[in-house]
Amino acid sequence: MNGAEALIQTLTDSGVKVCFANPGTSEMQLVAAIDKQKGMRAILGLFEGVVTGAADGYGRMTDKPSATLLHLGPGLANGLANLHNAKRARTPMINIVGDHAVEHLKHDAPLTSDIIGLAQPMSNWVRTSQSPSDLAKAGSEAAAISQTYPGQITTIIAPGNHAWTDGAETAIIKNIPDTPKANQNTITEAAEILSLAGPSAIFLGGRALREGALFQAGRVAAKTGARIICETLPARLQRGIGRVAVERLPYFAEMAVEHLKGLKKIIFVGVKPPVSFFAYPDKPSWLSPEDATLIELADVQTDAEDALLRLAEAINAPKEPGNVQEATQLAFEQGKLTRESLGIIISQLLPENAIVSDESGTSGGALFRHTASSPKHDWLIQTGGAIGQGLPVAVGAAVACPNRKVLALQADGSGMYTLQALWTMARENLDVTTVIMKNNSYGILNIELGRVGVSNPGPKALSLLDLANPELDWVAMSEGMGVPAQRAETAQQFHDALAKGVGHSGPRLIEAVLV
Amino acid sequence: MNGAEALIQTLTDSGVKVCFANPGTSEMQLVAAIDKQKGMRAILGLFEGVVTGAADGYGRMTDKPSATLLHLGPGLANGLANLHNAKRARTPMINIVGDHAVEHLKHDAPLTSDIIGLAQPMSNWVRTSQSPSDLAKAGSEAAAISQTYPGQITTIIAPGNHAWTDGAETAIIKNIPDTPKANQNTITEAAEILSLAGPSAIFLGGRALREGALFQAGRVAAKTGARIICETLPARLQRGIGRVAVERLPYFAEMAVEHLKGLKKIIFVGVKPPVSFFAYPDKPSWLSPEDATLIELADVQTDAEDALLRLAEAINAPKEPGNVQEATQLAFEQGKLTRESLGIIISQLLPENAIVSDESGTSGGALFRHTASSPKHDWLIQTGGAIGQGLPVAVGAAVACPNRKVLALQADGSGMYTLQALWTMARENLDVTTVIMKNNSYGILNIELGRVGVSNPGPKALSLLDLANPELDWVAMSEGMGVPAQRAETAQQFHDALAKGVGHSGPRLIEAVLV
Repeated sequence: MNGAEALIQTLTDSGVKVCFANPGTSEMQLVAAIDKQKGMRAILGLFEGVVTGAADGYGRMTDKPSATLLHLGPGLANGLANLHNAKRARTPMINIVGDHAVEHLKHDAPLTSDIIGLAQPMSNWVRTSQSPSDLAKAGSEAAAISQTYPGQITTIIAPGNHAWTDGAETAIIKNIPDTPKANQNTITEAAEILSLAGPSAIFLGGRALREGALFQAGRVAAKTGARIICETLPARLQRGIGRVAVERLPYFAEMAVEHLKGLKKIIFVGVKPPVSFFAYPDKPSWLSPEDATLIELADVQTDAEDALLRLAEAINAPKEPGNVQEATQLAFEQGKLTRESLGIIISQLLPENAIVSDESGTSGGALFRHTASSPKHDWLIQTGGAIGQGLPVAVGAAVACPNRKVLALQADGSGMYTLQALWTMARENLDVTTVIMKNNSYGILNIELGRVGVSNPGPKALSLLDLANPELDWVAMSEGMGVPAQRAETAQQFHDALAKGVGHSGPRLIEAVLV
Repeated sequence: MNGAEALIQTLTDSGVKVCFANPGTSEMQLVAAIDKQKGMRAILGLFEGVVTGAADGYGRMTDKPSATLLHLGPGLANGLANLHNAKRARTPMINIVGDHAVEHLKHDAPLTSDIIGLAQPMSNWVRTSQSPSDLAKAGSEAAAISQTYPGQITTIIAPGNHAWTDGAETAIIKNIPDTPKANQNTITEAAEILSLAGPSAIFLGGRALREGALFQAGRVAAKTGARIICETLPARLQRGIGRVAVERLPYFAEMAVEHLKGLKKIIFVGVKPPVSFFAYPDKPSWLSPEDATLIELADVQTDAEDALLRLAEAINAPKEPGNVQEATQLAFEQGKLTRESLGIIISQLLPENAIVSDESGTSGGALFRHTASSPKHDWLIQTGGAIGQGLPVAVGAAVACPNRKVLALQADGSGMYTLQALWTMARENLDVTTVIMKNNSYGILNIELGRVGVSNPGPKALSLLDLANPELDWVAMSEGMGVPAQRAETAQQFHDALAKGVGHSGPRLIEAVLV
């Protein structure tokens, strides 16, 4: 077998079942190897940001890596923004980036670039294959390292001649590294601190936002009265009726400070103490109260559920959690569609076990709040702040979980970054209902302009934040990529369109025009 | 003034007139500074690949830098593929990449990344501002360095607090470095070699493909009988009736070798000896005949026109050039639209002084050949092999030259990478007629699959090269972004649609369905 075949066989043997791809000439041998490999599905994205974002969504939902196949430095570069988000989300992923044949590099052909330099900022691990058989070894290492709890971005650089040369062998499958457990002294210390007077919170992120870990956090809360707060941008939050509910830290620094005000003790699990997203003139970046005691019970790479379980046991917490989400009844107001009515309608229609890919931006506050009392679902948020995540992550989540409904709740500005994802939804007939929240604006920037101290912006500044003139027609763009679409301007229209989308299997898009 | 204002004032004082932008929160002060600066136009792109590609097109047509405004590491990353092309095209450009305030970096907020690491592979020069006034100094340096002949990619990293802090001053405008001239010994040597027996060629690239340099090359050809050949992917080739015609080196290695076969002497101006785009099993990367004498008259950074003029004088070349392009009469065949009829129709309708942004890929061979005998025009090709250049470069060229018609001749697969450029054409009412050459395929990959040795590819491999299922509807997508569009399936329909597009001022799109 050639190096490409040895790599793809090794990845399949390691449990990698899907390759999201946008290949070029230097990856043709890898394409041929995937073609022959019955155990690996190949999914084309028409832009690399779709490919890496889909791999992120897949990894978040399965806790297993998929592979991506990318074309040299520029192909990797096009996928970097969503790799940034995936790295921040701690998603397991294996990127395969083709390169020129080794002997060809010295000629500095037009597509030559510093692939290692490009890969490193958005990867946890980068390795260039050294020989045809080494390509498979790199694959075996990447499969294991990518699954280092909670997940890592691995990138293999695959020279063309390693892929096409015969005589390569598959590599031995490597063990996934053990997940470290929290230190017993830290558990004891956290238990002691919780017993002291004053308001406390358990602050959760990463894997601590899965149902099992939340259950244990809820037991701690039941015993101690601690609040349960989560990071602003969780990779995957399991929520809904019957699960332990969390307060989500607000995005804006001054609101976040207010939210944490008065807390005397904060126990962090799976996340570092929060900081503001951006710095602003004369505002602090640090958000926790100055006089609070902060304890890291488990850092992001330490088993979160285990730490919370042991903490619950250490304090003799009851068997059942507190803070369990109950159902609520909400009714939406008729008339023009607003953020509020949109949020209520989605909360009413969200199916049990749905997956939400949330890149709703400034249109999303009411949405997140109201869906707290929807049936159980997973909520995937843009983790690294690089916009253009929402539609690709929905693609990957739908590939990962073909029997679950996916809702992509997507702001219009960020949706334009990777709109090509709609085509992949159509080709693969993915069960994704996309809701474009259309406000014809980079809404966040209109807010931020004032917050960074710019007063009285002129028309030139405002034009850079504005998506009107011309207005985007998402129905036309969506249908142009094969996804049936309709527009909704009133709450009732949106309700009916969403009911139809949720009731139907396969891709749909609703352009929700917000007032 | 604050640092942002000092930077923008300094850039304006240095002659920078346009900023292509996709800003975020960390760039709001820069947006405000551009807003106040009457001398700088601001143009929004809805994706950063549009922004950097537009700056490339602008720089190719003006030989002056525009600025780009990009949002931190991920925003830069999204623009890197077209920066790769621009770097290969030696385009002058000044990227301004916002970063977090310096004090905020230690907190590793979600959008933090290694911006320098990301910038270096696709920049010739990267500099992080050290203070509010240093931001303007960096701008002054970038303006000069970007114009180092023939052009350089410069990138300034602008921390938020340098932008917002008052008390900054504008920087002194720096001189553009002098352009080196060819060594007289090299001129003499080249003249001597041309006088020896055997077939010779002048091989041109970069700035040697402008009208003035070509004129001198034509004089040398008139005297010596040398062939005039140009690189496969020129950044800007001036051609058409009355100009000195060039042979373009074929893309595929074996055809390129055949093209150069028999040459005994090759004089290179503005370009290195050509190599194959990719390596293939058992095929050479080097394309020039083994026994030919190769001379570098002027490297890419040496004044090309001066070197050719002095060579022409050294050999007592006639005042008038040879190889001057004459008009030819071509008629197209009626019926279904083919690559051949499309090429002939475009050659007939291309207006005098048009600018062509060519990313036609496998659909473009006949197109380039037939338009040789069109009226004078500029031809801009994808230089670095990173697809997604064509539409953005058309945007930038149209901004640079508002009184010239721009034709974007665009393959469908690569067009999908940066289709957001259509929206900017609509917003700015740019005089661009886009022709999408629709073959529902990554055509090149269907060819390359066999060339790299893959025989009998299966359906999974072929599906990764195929854009059908579903077919893209470019008319719908274009109209969704505000650009009027129509479809053409026959030669006559295409002729009529193109005549309308060329006759009209403002953006239009034609989906040319190829058999």
